[in-house]
Amino acid sequence: MPDYHLTDAAVRPDPSAWHQAPRRLLLLATGGTIASQSSANGLVPTVNIDALLKYCRSALQHYDVTARSILQLDSSNIQPEEWRLIAGAIVREADQYDGIVITHGTDTMAYTASALSFMLPGITIPVVLTGAQLPISHPLSDATENLATALAMAARGPAGVFIAFDRQVILGTRAVKVRTTDFHAFESINYPLVGYVNGDGLQTDPALAPHSSAPFRLMDQLDPAVFLLKLTPGLNPDFFVLLQHLQYRALVIEAFGIGGIHYLHRDLLEGISQIIAQGIVVVVTSQCLYERSDFSRYETGQRVLDSGAIPAFDMTSEACVTKLIWILGQTRDPWQVGRWFRQNLAGELAGPLTDPAHWGQAD
Amino acid sequence: MPDYHLTDAAVRPDPSAWHQAPRRLLLLATGGTIASQSSANGLVPTVNIDALLKYCRSALQHYDVTARSILQLDSSNIQPEEWRLIAGAIVREADQYDGIVITHGTDTMAYTASALSFMLPGITIPVVLTGAQLPISHPLSDATENLATALAMAARGPAGVFIAFDRQVILGTRAVKVRTTDFHAFESINYPLVGYVNGDGLQTDPALAPHSSAPFRLMDQLDPAVFLLKLTPGLNPDFFVLLQHLQYRALVIEAFGIGGIHYLHRDLLEGISQIIAQGIVVVVTSQCLYERSDFSRYETGQRVLDSGAIPAFDMTSEACVTKLIWILGQTRDPWQVGRWFRQNLAGELAGPLTDPAHWGQAD
Repeated sequence: MPDYHLTDAAVRPDPSAWHQAPRRLLLLATGGTIASQSSANGLVPTVNIDALLKYCRSALQHYDVTARSILQLDSSNIQPEEWRLIAGAIVREADQYDGIVITHGTDTMAYTASALSFMLPGITIPVVLTGAQLPISHPLSDATENLATALAMAARGPAGVFIAFDRQVILGTRAVKVRTTDFHAFESINYPLVGYVNGDGLQTDPALAPHSSAPFRLMDQLDPAVFLLKLTPGLNPDFFVLLQHLQYRALVIEAFGIGGIHYLHRDLLEGISQIIAQGIVVVVTSQCLYERSDFSRYETGQRVLDSGAIPAFDMTSEACVTKLIWILGQTRDPWQVGRWFRQNLAGELAGPLTDPAHWGQAD
Repeated sequence: MPDYHLTDAAVRPDPSAWHQAPRRLLLLATGGTIASQSSANGLVPTVNIDALLKYCRSALQHYDVTARSILQLDSSNIQPEEWRLIAGAIVREADQYDGIVITHGTDTMAYTASALSFMLPGITIPVVLTGAQLPISHPLSDATENLATALAMAARGPAGVFIAFDRQVILGTRAVKVRTTDFHAFESINYPLVGYVNGDGLQTDPALAPHSSAPFRLMDQLDPAVFLLKLTPGLNPDFFVLLQHLQYRALVIEAFGIGGIHYLHRDLLEGISQIIAQGIVVVVTSQCLYERSDFSRYETGQRVLDSGAIPAFDMTSEACVTKLIWILGQTRDPWQVGRWFRQNLAGELAGPLTDPAHWGQAD
C-alpha cells in the first residue's frame, strides 16, 4: 500500500508554534469510517492515506509527519491477527519517531487500544489511536479535529497507548465505545481522562499514563480462546459444558449489577466450578457500564468467588477480554493466568502498577 | 409469607394532601437490597414487609397501602419463573387497586420490568418497580426516597409498567442498570423519562406511556431459550453450531458499534446464515449502551442483514432478550417470531405502537 511522506514546504513545521522543535510523527492508517466512502452496499474504507492527509493541513504545519497505510478495514474485522500486524508496524519504527498516531474504525478501537497496551510493555513514545464518526470527506466530519488531538498527544504526550476522540484522551485500557453516532463516542471508564483540549491547548496529566521503567519489548503472542458471556435471567448452565468442547481457555462473565449470578432453577455456580476444575479460567465482572464490580458485597456474589472465579473489580469488559487473550499467549497454566490477571499491568485495574519483571509472580 | 395491611389511624391518608381521594395501592415485595441485611456471607434479603413499611410513614400518610411479600430473593435469582409469579400476583388484584408498587433488587430489575411490560398488555393501572442501592435500614439509604417516587407514580401516573429510581420514572422497556453503586443506577435508553420529581412534585408525561385500547389480558407464557451474545474480536463461528445443540430458539447478538460483525479470518456471517436456516431467530443490536444500531450504514452491517438477521434498532439488549423470551411463549414459528419482534409492542421500539389485536400480523 502507498506511503506518503510529507515533505513539501507548505506543510513544514511552523517555527513560531508552541513547541520548540518539530516533532517527527508516524501516522499508520488501518481503514475505518474516517477513511470510508459511500458505496452501493454502505460505507466502505477506501480512502487512501494521501487523500486523508490533505484534510489535515493546519495540524500538519506543526509536525513532520510520515504516513503509511497498513490496513484498509472496517474495524469490525480487526481481530488478534491485525493487533499483531499493527504492533509489528509500531515496533519496526518506534525508535525513529516522537510519537505514533493510528487511524482506526471506532467499532473495535477500544479492544485494539487495550490489546496494544498489553502487547507493548515499556513503550517509550505515545501511541494514539483515533478515528471518526463521519468520513473525513464529509463537511461535518469530526475526523480532522480528532486527528488534531491525536497528533498533539503523539507529539507532546507521555509514553503509552491512548485513544484521542472528541477533544479527549483516554487511557487505552480504559476506553469503551458507548455511543453509536454521537461524536462523544468514547468514555473513560473508572479512570480520569489522561488529557483534554481547551483554550490552553492539549492538557495532559502524565501521572495518569502508567509508565514502566522496564526496557521496551514486543510481547505479541496471543490466544483468542476467550469467551465473553453477558448473563441473562434464565441462562441454562448447559452452556458451560459446551465451552469445554470448543476448547476455550478463559471465560469472562458479565454478571448482574455489582456482582450476582443465578443459582436457583438453573445452577450456574455449579457449572462455573466444573469448568474451573477442568482448567478454564473464569473472570467475573459487571454488565453495568460504569463503576466497579464487587462480588464480596452480596451473598450471591460471595458464592461466585467461592467457586474459584476471579473478580475483575474496575476493569472494563474490553480490558478483561484483551488481557486474557494476551496472557494466554504468554502462559496457558490456569494458575499462572490467574496470577497475571490479578495484577495491574497497564493501568487497566486499580492498584499499584506491577513491573513487567514481576508479572505472574506473587506480590 | 406475611401480608401487612396498613389500617392504623396514624398512617391514614391525609385529607389536606395534594390529591383528592386516598389512593388504594398494593405493595408487592420480592426481596433485593432494599430488604437486605448483613450476614456472614454478605447482604441477604431478609427484611420482612412490615419492617420495610415502618420506614415509609411520611409517604404512607397519603395512600391506603396494602403490602404483601411474594418473594424474598436477591434479584440475581429472579428469572422467568419469578416473572410469571409476579405477573400472577399483579393480575390477581389489579382491579382492586389504583396502582401497584413492586420492590425488587436492582440487578435484574430492568429485565423484570421489560418482561412484565410484554406480559401485561392493556394493563389499566400503573405498575411501578423500585428498589435501593443501600438497605432501607441504612441511615443513608435511598430506599424511602425511591419508594416515595414509586408510590406517587402508582397513585397518579398513567397505566403501564415503569421503574422509579433516583427521583425519575423510566418506561419498563427502556431501563438499563448502568451503575453498580451510585444512586443514579438506571438510565432511560433512547427514550425520554416518563416522569421526574421536583419542587412541584411528580411530573409525568402520560403520552410517553404506551397505552393500548385493547382489553387487559395476562400473557405469561415464556420460553427462556434465548441466548445473548456480546461479540468480541476473534470470536470463532464454531460457537453458533453449539447453540443448535443446546436447542436455543433465538440469539441476540450485540455487534460492534452501530452494527458490524467480523467475517474475515472467522466468518460469523456464514454461521449466522446457517443457524437462521435451521430455524433459530437471530436479532442484531449494538454493544454500545447509548443510541440506536443501524446495520444498513456500513457494508459490514449490510452483510449481516443480508444473512437474514433482524435489526433491533433502538431497543435495549434487556428488551430484546425479554421480548424474545415472551414471543417464543406465544409462537415458535420463526417467521411469526420475526413478525412480532419487528413491531413496537410496549414502547420498546421507535415507531407507532401496534395494537395487541394485530401483533404478529402484517402492518
